[in-house]
Amino acid sequence: MSTPAHPSESTPSRRSGRPLGVAAIGYAFMGKAHSNAWRNVASFFDVPAFEQKVLVGRDATAVAEAAARYGWAESATDWRSVINRDDIHIIDICAPGWMHAEIAIAALEAGKHVLVEKPLANTLAEAELMTAAAAKARARGVQSMIGFNYRRVPALALARELISEGRLGTVRHVRAAYLQDWLSDAQAPMTWRLRKETAGSGALGDIASHAIDQIQFLTGQAVMEASGTLKTFVTQRPGDQGMENVTVDDAAWATLWLTGDMGASVEASRVATGQKNSMQIEIYGTKGSLTFDLENLNELGFLDATLPSREQGFRRILVNEPEHPYLAAWWPQGHIIGWEHTFTHQVRDFLLAIKDGTQPSPSFEEGLQVQRVLASVEESASNRSVLTPVHAKSLVAEGA
Amino acid sequence: MSTPAHPSESTPSRRSGRPLGVAAIGYAFMGKAHSNAWRNVASFFDVPAFEQKVLVGRDATAVAEAAARYGWAESATDWRSVINRDDIHIIDICAPGWMHAEIAIAALEAGKHVLVEKPLANTLAEAELMTAAAAKARARGVQSMIGFNYRRVPALALARELISEGRLGTVRHVRAAYLQDWLSDAQAPMTWRLRKETAGSGALGDIASHAIDQIQFLTGQAVMEASGTLKTFVTQRPGDQGMENVTVDDAAWATLWLTGDMGASVEASRVATGQKNSMQIEIYGTKGSLTFDLENLNELGFLDATLPSREQGFRRILVNEPEHPYLAAWWPQGHIIGWEHTFTHQVRDFLLAIKDGTQPSPSFEEGLQVQRVLASVEESASNRSVLTPVHAKSLVAEGA
Amino acid sequence: MSTPAHPSESTPSRRSGRPLGVAAIGYAFMGKAHSNAWRNVASFFDVPAFEQKVLVGRDATAVAEAAARYGWAESATDWRSVINRDDIHIIDICAPGWMHAEIAIAALEAGKHVLVEKPLANTLAEAELMTAAAAKARARGVQSMIGFNYRRVPALALARELISEGRLGTVRHVRAAYLQDWLSDAQAPMTWRLRKETAGSGALGDIASHAIDQIQFLTGQAVMEASGTLKTFVTQRPGDQGMENVTVDDAAWATLWLTGDMGASVEASRVATGQKNSMQIEIYGTKGSLTFDLENLNELGFLDATLPSREQGFRRILVNEPEHPYLAAWWPQGHIIGWEHTFTHQVRDFLLAIKDGTQPSPSFEEGLQVQRVLASVEESASNRSVLTPVHAKSLVAEGA
Amino acid sequence: MSTPAHPSESTPSRRSGRPLGVAAIGYAFMGKAHSNAWRNVASFFDVPAFEQKVLVGRDATAVAEAAARYGWAESATDWRSVINRDDIHIIDICAPGWMHAEIAIAALEAGKHVLVEKPLANTLAEAELMTAAAAKARARGVQSMIGFNYRRVPALALARELISEGRLGTVRHVRAAYLQDWLSDAQAPMTWRLRKETAGSGALGDIASHAIDQIQFLTGQAVMEASGTLKTFVTQRPGDQGMENVTVDDAAWATLWLTGDMGASVEASRVATGQKNSMQIEIYGTKGSLTFDLENLNELGFLDATLPSREQGFRRILVNEPEHPYLAAWWPQGHIIGWEHTFTHQVRDFLLAIKDGTQPSPSFEEGLQVQRVLASVEESASNRSVLTPVHAKSLVAEGA
Repeated sequence: MSTPAHPSESTPSRRSGRPLGVAAIGYAFMGKAHSNAWRNVASFFDVPAFEQKVLVGRDATAVAEAAARYGWAESATDWRSVINRDDIHIIDICAPGWMHAEIAIAALEAGKHVLVEKPLANTLAEAELMTAAAAKARARGVQSMIGFNYRRVPALALARELISEGRLGTVRHVRAAYLQDWLSDAQAPMTWRLRKETAGSGALGDIASHAIDQIQFLTGQAVMEASGTLKTFVTQRPGDQGMENVTVDDAAWATLWLTGDMGASVEASRVATGQKNSMQIEIYGTKGSLTFDLENLNELGFLDATLPSREQGFRRILVNEPEHPYLAAWWPQGHIIGWEHTFTHQVRDFLLAIKDGTQPSPSFEEGLQVQRVLASVEESASNRSVLTPVHAKSLVAEGA
Repeated sequence: MSTPAHPSESTPSRRSGRPLGVAAIGYAFMGKAHSNAWRNVASFFDVPAFEQKVLVGRDATAVAEAAARYGWAESATDWRSVINRDDIHIIDICAPGWMHAEIAIAALEAGKHVLVEKPLANTLAEAELMTAAAAKARARGVQSMIGFNYRRVPALALARELISEGRLGTVRHVRAAYLQDWLSDAQAPMTWRLRKETAGSGALGDIASHAIDQIQFLTGQAVMEASGTLKTFVTQRPGDQGMENVTVDDAAWATLWLTGDMGASVEASRVATGQKNSMQIEIYGTKGSLTFDLENLNELGFLDATLPSREQGFRRILVNEPEHPYLAAWWPQGHIIGWEHTFTHQVRDFLLAIKDGTQPSPSFEEGLQVQRVLASVEESASNRSVLTPVHAKSLVAEGA
Repeated sequence: MSTPAHPSESTPSRRSGRPLGVAAIGYAFMGKAHSNAWRNVASFFDVPAFEQKVLVGRDATAVAEAAARYGWAESATDWRSVINRDDIHIIDICAPGWMHAEIAIAALEAGKHVLVEKPLANTLAEAELMTAAAAKARARGVQSMIGFNYRRVPALALARELISEGRLGTVRHVRAAYLQDWLSDAQAPMTWRLRKETAGSGALGDIASHAIDQIQFLTGQAVMEASGTLKTFVTQRPGDQGMENVTVDDAAWATLWLTGDMGASVEASRVATGQKNSMQIEIYGTKGSLTFDLENLNELGFLDATLPSREQGFRRILVNEPEHPYLAAWWPQGHIIGWEHTFTHQVRDFLLAIKDGTQPSPSFEEGLQVQRVLASVEESASNRSVLTPVHAKSLVAEGA
Repeated sequence: MSTPAHPSESTPSRRSGRPLGVAAIGYAFMGKAHSNAWRNVASFFDVPAFEQKVLVGRDATAVAEAAARYGWAESATDWRSVINRDDIHIIDICAPGWMHAEIAIAALEAGKHVLVEKPLANTLAEAELMTAAAAKARARGVQSMIGFNYRRVPALALARELISEGRLGTVRHVRAAYLQDWLSDAQAPMTWRLRKETAGSGALGDIASHAIDQIQFLTGQAVMEASGTLKTFVTQRPGDQGMENVTVDDAAWATLWLTGDMGASVEASRVATGQKNSMQIEIYGTKGSLTFDLENLNELGFLDATLPSREQGFRRILVNEPEHPYLAAWWPQGHIIGWEHTFTHQVRDFLLAIKDGTQPSPSFEEGLQVQRVLASVEESASNRSVLTPVHAKSLVAEGA
């Protein structure tokens, strides 16, 4: 009367031989989000068969608890031994940025497909080494991908479709911002994210990077020149041993110039009081415009300037129709999905690329290119001559 | 080096003996949503240990496929035998409304805890039998709950907290609507949802019921009197054998009078073109007001009328802070959650009530009460004398 | 070098003989708004030449002050003598509703064109007498108009155009509300607006009347049947001699059935805390929908359901383009106009109708028809049998 | 029975001797807006008695027509003779920017109070001469003011109040943009506004200037350093004699650094397709934040970060209460005012300053300071070294 479920037989996607073994490294915020994606992707999408094998972390007790909670069969503390297991085919790196290069390069050399959280690395040099390793691995059929997960927000995927189809005509300029406020309070404590040696940079690398990736992803143009300013408003914060110096930026501003004669502005702040996780993007083209805010990620604003002037206006597209990217797999129209499913979509696309033997997007090269833009912004910001003083004295008074 | 994950040891919530065995009946829209909740709840919340044992459906092949996909260990086609299994402790009924009474009563009599989707039943008589069965079962420690899942939208749970704390003063009236448009197209085909014998009613029972439950849940008041109108705009739709009569309402309007001298209006439509899944609730009190729209379910509008007039205004609370109901378990602030997690929260609260031996809310009694309101609306709507004709002729002209 | 301005020569609209003499009766809220319209209309629109001759009020000092302030050449206290002046051609009645009938009928009989504020009158009988007088006057070329000024909100005029052009297909139902909060405070004092003998009715006649006029104006359909409920939440308020009984409604709810098989809901409240002057209208048709809120009166929401599903969404049309009704006369695009200009547009259309010898719209007949709808709502509301009790006792328990 | 209106006797504000004689120069867009302010200000506000004497323009017929239409007693073509009339006390300069200096300096020397539209002048040198003339005139009791009219948007005036009261704590950064789209169409024709010699600059001077004035006005801080980029997207446009070169910017971007360790970003565009007149300002402080958009100028967004986290959110204050700046003079709450009344408020404040013998704000000095900021942005933009190239080649590949 009762039939055991046989996923390997009953699901079409699981017919292709031995399931892929997956190991994830890191179980904090990103590890939780990636685990959630692995746990759910096969319930909604047809993907190659895989197994959530091992979760890796440094604290044996904590990682065992996390593995049990997040659906992993085992836990481990030594990522090197996991990388070398025969039953592991995919390494998902959710560890902090300063660990990315060592793990990713080792995993690629061990022939494992690699998904790595952004930023690709904390330094340009590491990022370039990783990219070189990825290129070599790809030649052997080993895939790699960087986790700019917002490319898989359905509304932004739809935005890219519309732009690709020419619905905006020529894009002239983009206005982007990524605003948070978790550092607004000057008493918020010191963390590794506020030290240059562990975090690489502050708002610039952590969140402006997402906005810059989107600008390039959505429009298909590449940043050629950058001008920027960085600012640390709260220069000391309470740490375990008293006040410590904050060595990364609280906020960043950049003006970018791209191929296609396109301009863009980017603003990133972690002290924008009242903004919780607001990545705002506005794209202005000759035939139309788009607007987006991550705090309402199920919506896309679209203005079609080819309609009669009398009836033009920004429309709120609730991106929850079966026609929309990724949405056919989810719920009926109007039943919105959450932030976490950008990762579910990312894992889905990663698995399909592995199955098809194609390069998943975004590649390490794309991640490296974003970091080069960040480096240019930093270089520009360190050059105070970009700021022109406002002449305070009256020329007339002087002349008089 | 590698440690098998031992959920039964490592998770505090799973220490209390044998895991609860869960069976779900139904694997369509609601079955998918409930399965998702069971699959994820333990990854985010501390709940008693349980196992996703059996998924039950009528088509053996299809239910086996669904079980594999949605995380159930087995599938089955005969719900009666599943109900009688010793290793099954919870029955989650996601089958259509006309099957609820038979399954729920049998399950309760078999000593299984029961979670049943709304509406409680298609007829008032069945709902009353179920409620009586639930009362008897409760006396034996067997729990039951009806799935008005929107009570677990964090923003609505916060709304209830604010009202309970007196932040709105005395609530005078509520303006509620549940608007969809999947029947706007007159060529949309006939389904079981459009036949009175299978669906019970149309927009009234399907979606107005949610709004009515919310009105009572949020304010703590009970509907005493109702006046209503029902309307079928598209009276015939294409079925397998040609055009068929639609025998339920496309739209419903009701004015309600509640305890506490409180009024409420309810409007429900499945032909509100452009509205995808918009349950809108506005609550007006002597000291403040609240607004909500399900299409932006992470937000609550709140106006505090005790502030100086100069600075009053509806504020958009992004209900994503650790202080907000259910949110501490999810992601950092501003990372919004999806519609499906109303079910995750529901399962969490159901499991905790079972563990604590308390009545989960909403009870079958509460579900029955909502159906009595629906019945009053239908009774009122069938009485055309509630509509007063507009006198078209001129009294003056007559007198002249 | 300096040339006196000769409006009678230089403005094309002023070539047609003697300017029309205008007298306004009343200088409170509505008198101020109407005066503003008269003072400004010729600066923006080509209208027949007219002069702001006399402002009439009961308090000689106050009305003289108001006349000077609002641009009238003279003031007066006796409306009867003003009506009979040869140099007065237009009477604009801004006095309270209970005075409308007497003044309007006398003015029409004296051969003066009449513009009267809504509501047409406080009683149906008076409204019918006025309508009969208007019909007789019209036969002699004397025009009359009722001031449902919101017909001249550009966004609503655009809405009517779109509906007339068939852009919404067949309208199925309308959801309307007019929400204010100036009576939320139970200590707000007694006024003539809260006594049935002076005000006629409360929220129903004062603001629901606007919503009902719009429903009919926008869709071109007429209300045939009505069901309603009225409620006074604060039954006593402080007056000059202690607490007084409030004898009109604070809030009103109505369900309407119109020609064209169209339904509508109307909600009006003066205790909707936080809503300042929010007339909300949503119109759902087979091919599209419209939304509007008076607090953002320069905007119209429009959803075109004939577009591909992928790109549908409510668009915010900023109704400030030269292509939009009335807008070519004002400012460049995006420079929004205020509430007061609904009256400016009203006066413009009234003057043009007088010039052309056509019936201005809305006519007294249209005003009378709205009042018949209000009367039906009141009649329905007085019949408590429209409310069906919710059966509280269990049928099963009884049967058991 | 009928009493002539005696404004000079009945209005308290008109008691102080001979009315002020006003002349306005220019009758295009700004002349129309200023005339509207003069025609209406005394109907709403208690101001010193004045008369709309002369409207000045170059085309005798057209200016006579405009004078009649806009409420001026006379018209004239020679501004010099008007400036020297004894019955003229106020000169309101609405002519293009390149004429400002000559007229303003002559008027100030003739002892006339001067209101001049922004920008103060097209060149810094002219602006400095004007400022020097204003300083001399002030010493003789002759007042001058520059028309940054948006300081008189009630919502922005309220914003300044809240910031002054410390409700935002220390302001850290401001995000500002002024977006229009009237040049989006590459076929939009050449005008004087697109030539450097007549217009001075493009989006920068025309609209970014408003945003920069607001940043300084609202926060009370002064810009010390600026970095900027300018861009002309459409470099040729059709003129009367074929294609002509556009010599001003279509869009401008600037990062500003102010006193008080405060940063600001400014973006201005006249090719932001779909944005009609959207000046957006967001102000982030340690204790709260404010948001504003000129297309909804009756609203202010305010987030109070001192409230409990659970109930924080941006609130939409409908700035239409008697408690709000300028609003007591207008309509009841919720009855929104239009863009044009920023000029009405400006004239009111200018008249009151003249009456009181105080310096109206903003002064020419303040206008000059804004122009210095604009000049710094232009200087920075002309220095291409502010843009740092993105290194496209791989360092690793090179090294390998």
